[in-house]
Amino acid sequence: MVAQMPRPAPAPTAAIIVIGDEVLSGKVEEQNARFLVRELRALGVAVRRIEVVPDVEDEIASVVRAAAAAHDHVFTSGGVGPTHDDVTVAGIAAAFGVPVVRDRYLADLIREVGGDRFFERDLRGADVPEGAVLLRGDGSPQARWPVVAMRNVYVLPGVPSILQRKFATIRERFRAAPFVSRQLYSRECEGAIADALDKAAADFPGVAIGSYPHLDAPDHRVLVTLDGRDRAAVEGACAQLLAALGPAIVRVE
Amino acid sequence: MVAQMPRPAPAPTAAIIVIGDEVLSGKVEEQNARFLVRELRALGVAVRRIEVVPDVEDEIASVVRAAAAAHDHVFTSGGVGPTHDDVTVAGIAAAFGVPVVRDRYLADLIREVGGDRFFERDLRGADVPEGAVLLRGDGSPQARWPVVAMRNVYVLPGVPSILQRKFATIRERFRAAPFVSRQLYSRECEGAIADALDKAAADFPGVAIGSYPHLDAPDHRVLVTLDGRDRAAVEGACAQLLAALGPAIVRVE
Repeated sequence: MVAQMPRPAPAPTAAIIVIGDEVLSGKVEEQNARFLVRELRALGVAVRRIEVVPDVEDEIASVVRAAAAAHDHVFTSGGVGPTHDDVTVAGIAAAFGVPVVRDRYLADLIREVGGDRFFERDLRGADVPEGAVLLRGDGSPQARWPVVAMRNVYVLPGVPSILQRKFATIRERFRAAPFVSRQLYSRECEGAIADALDKAAADFPGVAIGSYPHLDAPDHRVLVTLDGRDRAAVEGACAQLLAALGPAIVRVE
Repeated sequence: MVAQMPRPAPAPTAAIIVIGDEVLSGKVEEQNARFLVRELRALGVAVRRIEVVPDVEDEIASVVRAAAAAHDHVFTSGGVGPTHDDVTVAGIAAAFGVPVVRDRYLADLIREVGGDRFFERDLRGADVPEGAVLLRGDGSPQARWPVVAMRNVYVLPGVPSILQRKFATIRERFRAAPFVSRQLYSRECEGAIADALDKAAADFPGVAIGSYPHLDAPDHRVLVTLDGRDRAAVEGACAQLLAALGPAIVRVE
């Protein structure tokens, strides 16, 4: 029996789109998706898709278009800069059917910061999809470089340290109700506990239940995870599994 | 001027589909895509897409269907096993419009290996999309567990050590002509070298040219990468960039 209580609204969802041949060729270890996944999780946002796509405008456009329609927030990483392989802005503009335009605030900032190391080509960094807004963040010095947002698509750079600084200036915009999580460690294998997991998954549809074999763990064979936004439901599913599996559960966290 | 020589055929392409809520929630650091990217690169296969999707049959089905149509090879990781959250096989079957059927060879193997630790639910590991084939690899002991392949989709597990062992038994199937790569290190910033990169990219369309700022490197500001299957074209693009950029290039690898 599941108590009929009002449930929290589902978590806002997000997609992360990593743009870069260098990731697909294995030259660079991807760090930005894993950073954003952890940040968004902590903010209460459910990441539902990560995609790594090459530096190809058409492919970026179709992936961005689909992600922007399917998710509350979309974050892109990479492909912004002055060289020929930087086509993210063009791809996002194409996704929304708008032209690329040069933003005057960004152009002035690029000239000013560049000083005597400024090149005309650097102004490509001031190109944005028409209709984009500049999020100037929290007013701190690192927020001097705004984040470009086109509707629900946030354009972030590929260099991890800069991506992290820029995300920090906008992160509070995305804060939602936190997730509640429990972990159960089972000394029995997946085959032995699968029926109990089926029942809990059916009885508590708002709780995501995951089952992960740990082959090399000293004291357990399976990690069972429970996640949701409704604390009562997560605790209820946890209690049901403990009752059903009894001594199979080594510990709960 | 680009010499008109016969060019090698384009590299075979691949997509990697990682299935797992645990990656999207940041609980597990994804290792399988990065392993497969490196392996496939070394084999001469161009990975063109990586997607991380949740444990949801419909989403797996649509991603697999699109990837199988767009790429020569598709590799899935995760979502195979006896529990409710293992829905990869059902998703792949749905992608191709076929039912899930139980494979007798796999069922017998699971019973035999399970011995007195066998559970009926473990037989879900013998479920395959109808029409799938079992690739028994190279006959070595670790190849006893075959890789399930549904047309051009290869089904691999989520546990990294097992995925790596299974992939090793089939890797030679995918070997193609190797990539040729060069790296140029520029002490000038991207804005200063962008025009020369534009020209090389236009003159050598079969060579992928990447430009990556390295903010913290002691002796250079930008790494320029050249990749292709045609050695003469890659060397030609490299020579053209060296001639155009001259003293800006710190070294070539």
